[in-house]
Amino acid sequence: MVRIDLNCDMGESFGPWPMGSDLEILNYVTSANIACGFHAGDPTIMHKTVEAALAKGVAVGAHPGLPDLQGFGRRAMALAPKDAYDIVVYQVGALAGFAKALGGKLSHVKAHGALYNMAAKDFALSEAIARAVRDIDPELVLFGLAGSQTIRAAESLGLRPAAEVFADRTYQDDGSLTPRNRSDALIEDPEAAVLQAKRLVIEGQVRSIRGRDIAVRADTLCIHGEHPSALVFAKRIRAEFEREGVAIAALRNMRS
Amino acid sequence: MVRIDLNCDMGESFGPWPMGSDLEILNYVTSANIACGFHAGDPTIMHKTVEAALAKGVAVGAHPGLPDLQGFGRRAMALAPKDAYDIVVYQVGALAGFAKALGGKLSHVKAHGALYNMAAKDFALSEAIARAVRDIDPELVLFGLAGSQTIRAAESLGLRPAAEVFADRTYQDDGSLTPRNRSDALIEDPEAAVLQAKRLVIEGQVRSIRGRDIAVRADTLCIHGEHPSALVFAKRIRAEFEREGVAIAALRNMRS
Amino acid sequence: MVRIDLNCDMGESFGPWPMGSDLEILNYVTSANIACGFHAGDPTIMHKTVEAALAKGVAVGAHPGLPDLQGFGRRAMALAPKDAYDIVVYQVGALAGFAKALGGKLSHVKAHGALYNMAAKDFALSEAIARAVRDIDPELVLFGLAGSQTIRAAESLGLRPAAEVFADRTYQDDGSLTPRNRSDALIEDPEAAVLQAKRLVIEGQVRSIRGRDIAVRADTLCIHGEHPSALVFAKRIRAEFEREGVAIAALRNMRS
Amino acid sequence: MVRIDLNCDMGESFGPWPMGSDLEILNYVTSANIACGFHAGDPTIMHKTVEAALAKGVAVGAHPGLPDLQGFGRRAMALAPKDAYDIVVYQVGALAGFAKALGGKLSHVKAHGALYNMAAKDFALSEAIARAVRDIDPELVLFGLAGSQTIRAAESLGLRPAAEVFADRTYQDDGSLTPRNRSDALIEDPEAAVLQAKRLVIEGQVRSIRGRDIAVRADTLCIHGEHPSALVFAKRIRAEFEREGVAIAALRNMRS
Repeated sequence: MVRIDLNCDMGESFGPWPMGSDLEILNYVTSANIACGFHAGDPTIMHKTVEAALAKGVAVGAHPGLPDLQGFGRRAMALAPKDAYDIVVYQVGALAGFAKALGGKLSHVKAHGALYNMAAKDFALSEAIARAVRDIDPELVLFGLAGSQTIRAAESLGLRPAAEVFADRTYQDDGSLTPRNRSDALIEDPEAAVLQAKRLVIEGQVRSIRGRDIAVRADTLCIHGEHPSALVFAKRIRAEFEREGVAIAALRNMRS
Repeated sequence: MVRIDLNCDMGESFGPWPMGSDLEILNYVTSANIACGFHAGDPTIMHKTVEAALAKGVAVGAHPGLPDLQGFGRRAMALAPKDAYDIVVYQVGALAGFAKALGGKLSHVKAHGALYNMAAKDFALSEAIARAVRDIDPELVLFGLAGSQTIRAAESLGLRPAAEVFADRTYQDDGSLTPRNRSDALIEDPEAAVLQAKRLVIEGQVRSIRGRDIAVRADTLCIHGEHPSALVFAKRIRAEFEREGVAIAALRNMRS
Repeated sequence: MVRIDLNCDMGESFGPWPMGSDLEILNYVTSANIACGFHAGDPTIMHKTVEAALAKGVAVGAHPGLPDLQGFGRRAMALAPKDAYDIVVYQVGALAGFAKALGGKLSHVKAHGALYNMAAKDFALSEAIARAVRDIDPELVLFGLAGSQTIRAAESLGLRPAAEVFADRTYQDDGSLTPRNRSDALIEDPEAAVLQAKRLVIEGQVRSIRGRDIAVRADTLCIHGEHPSALVFAKRIRAEFEREGVAIAALRNMRS
Repeated sequence: MVRIDLNCDMGESFGPWPMGSDLEILNYVTSANIACGFHAGDPTIMHKTVEAALAKGVAVGAHPGLPDLQGFGRRAMALAPKDAYDIVVYQVGALAGFAKALGGKLSHVKAHGALYNMAAKDFALSEAIARAVRDIDPELVLFGLAGSQTIRAAESLGLRPAAEVFADRTYQDDGSLTPRNRSDALIEDPEAAVLQAKRLVIEGQVRSIRGRDIAVRADTLCIHGEHPSALVFAKRIRAEFEREGVAIAALRNMRS
């Protein structure tokens, strides 16, 4: 049976500044990647978001980022792998503290923004992140771009990886995402995004921007929470998967 | 048999700025209270300090503070108890992450600076801190000023408290410390400090500034790490206790 | 002729998080108090906000706050007057830098949140803030709560004060605002708020919650920018003042 | 007559953490580059450092850095030129505020760490920094690595540049510094450093690591303040220059 996890970044408000529609989106996703205070989020936001995810039975994950609140963790930074290890242990530990204090358990980790993108191409950085995750708890699932160095690093350390795919980003012939600065990076048409998501999940394939069909492993599909249309898309894609008989579930349940 | 724990705040360097002589002082104390990044410390410093404490068999504790790096967590701040809960879960979780990643375990929690002092007098604040500690792990010991609201709050939640005493601070008739802004707050003479420490630990008594002998419970004695003479004092007090047959051990070992 | 300045706090977005409707509200106010990065705002937001205010001919002011981004500068903090001096020089200097770089000039300073409220009751704190403002530029106007220590401190240093009044807050017999934690602190009815604003500005009087008419000096009226109804209120109050023949102008123009 | 400015980075303490020997080194240098709170320094440190520099007649400069306190501004970061403009205006404005409040005047600007190094090779980044400096005050001198894009950018905007040279770094054939990660990057022998400084300043030449004599313009020589031997070197180099009849003076005095 075909299965997919639907994940969404959340808890990305900060202090008096709200972001996203976390409470609504929790009705449609199976994994919540919760910001840990470096690129977004603060202890109070983390508390509320973990509480809401646990109440809805959504898997709680840590979403560690670069220490750059103003830049929302999106500015690449020269970070030594050993420093990446430390900021991941810190943030995952803090979020695990909330999960435990609120009677739950941490399920997974997904790096944010520039840290996610830098790690995708850099094995040493991915390996440092994966070691941090494993050293805290080897049962945690590490999310990474399908086909990236992050997946390789997780596997090399005996950690369970989750290959992430995107409905609204185009792919290149080698399976990597078209860089955002190119005009053909995004799929704006919702119908085309739904189609791409279905092919990725059901067939394990995607058509590249050059028209080639390439194989991509899909364990989890990213739902962008900040888009105004995110809610509509999340509902729609869930309904499509249900109609096709795809099981929608968090990865923690798929082990063994 | 009389027992005492010797604790010291450490890991209070930040980025390129060193503070204290952590590695040396670890030879003399039994509990290390390690800063968690809010008033001092950063992920890299936390990593090194937890590693060093574990290597020397010193009990690893979290030392959460107010979010005020410039002020070193020493400026009182109007913090709602629920916000105190959140910043304690966050910081204790982060430090527990390092303890776990490095093969150890968190033993205790001691609030820092203004948070410690505010909580000593405020039951609701202490109760919020104690709940945060208990919700993360009910086996953790909560350090607080002997006779303070923090001790009461820990007991009311079924958490094990550790009553902390000071060798170099004077006491008032009601068992509270003489406020720092008074000229007679500090004991400058090392001999007098050693004597006060011995009476506190062995007899459970201290002479107040008004000359009355009062009863004070002493589970753990604070060694100030930033003083240049801290190392000398730590060695001396250890030797004195050993000569008197006082057992020096972390509190995690004293349960049963 | 009766005159009034209409001021609004703005530039209180941060990084990726928007706040307020600055561009619209600039059409109705005469003074903009722009956050300086401590409680809100960042260099990029400051740049945009100063630029927009200059483009609309609105007086540019600095709005310095406590160093507490998560708490939005609303949590009281034990700040020594000399430290208040330093954080005000820093923030006013930074905002003056943008004003100068963009071809304009700083007109005034208004402290934010807890710093404003603490200073209103504390002459030493107000005096430190006023000295910081005067030392940077003695031509700057210092905004403060009408009748407060801030007004006294500005006058004692030869600095021009602007007495600030509120349309939507109730007053006590001594001219101070009813504390926010009381149920009768706010005027929810827009008609009542408009009436209070008109009496304050035109008659220099307000009816206290106990029903006494008291004299209050009104140089500038605060428009709360974050309220969803702020824009409607701003338009309305402007129209009312215009009909009554009240001159609406920034205070920089009222000197001499 | 040959002239040289001796500059030193200072004010790089933060909160409770001291760094450097600013007060002593001010006796030997003619320009102080003072940290502005992003990579180091805080409002209180800035106040003290500006005050000390003014008291000794040393030219006061701003030393803006990347927003990375933990990394001391030494980690390269993907910063858009327009964001560099904003962080430079902010930091230079803040430091100018202290200079003005304390009765002095800002003389120059020197970027710090990774911002300095990134700008040296990147004209667009240097141009953004130079525009920020010029827009605040076209009389300011902009320090940059001799022969770098920063010097070119300053000249292209009509700003006065100061070409900076180093006594203890080796040079390559093209006049650039040998990267720090190479084993031959540093000159450890104090005698060799003094000789290189003298040749750079008096002859305008330096011998590259390959043994070629190359021309380098030297307006200002960098004294590293954090080295334990900095004070000794500063005294020595000053004495050498005085003996050779080299005028030692800040650049503000050399205009016209």
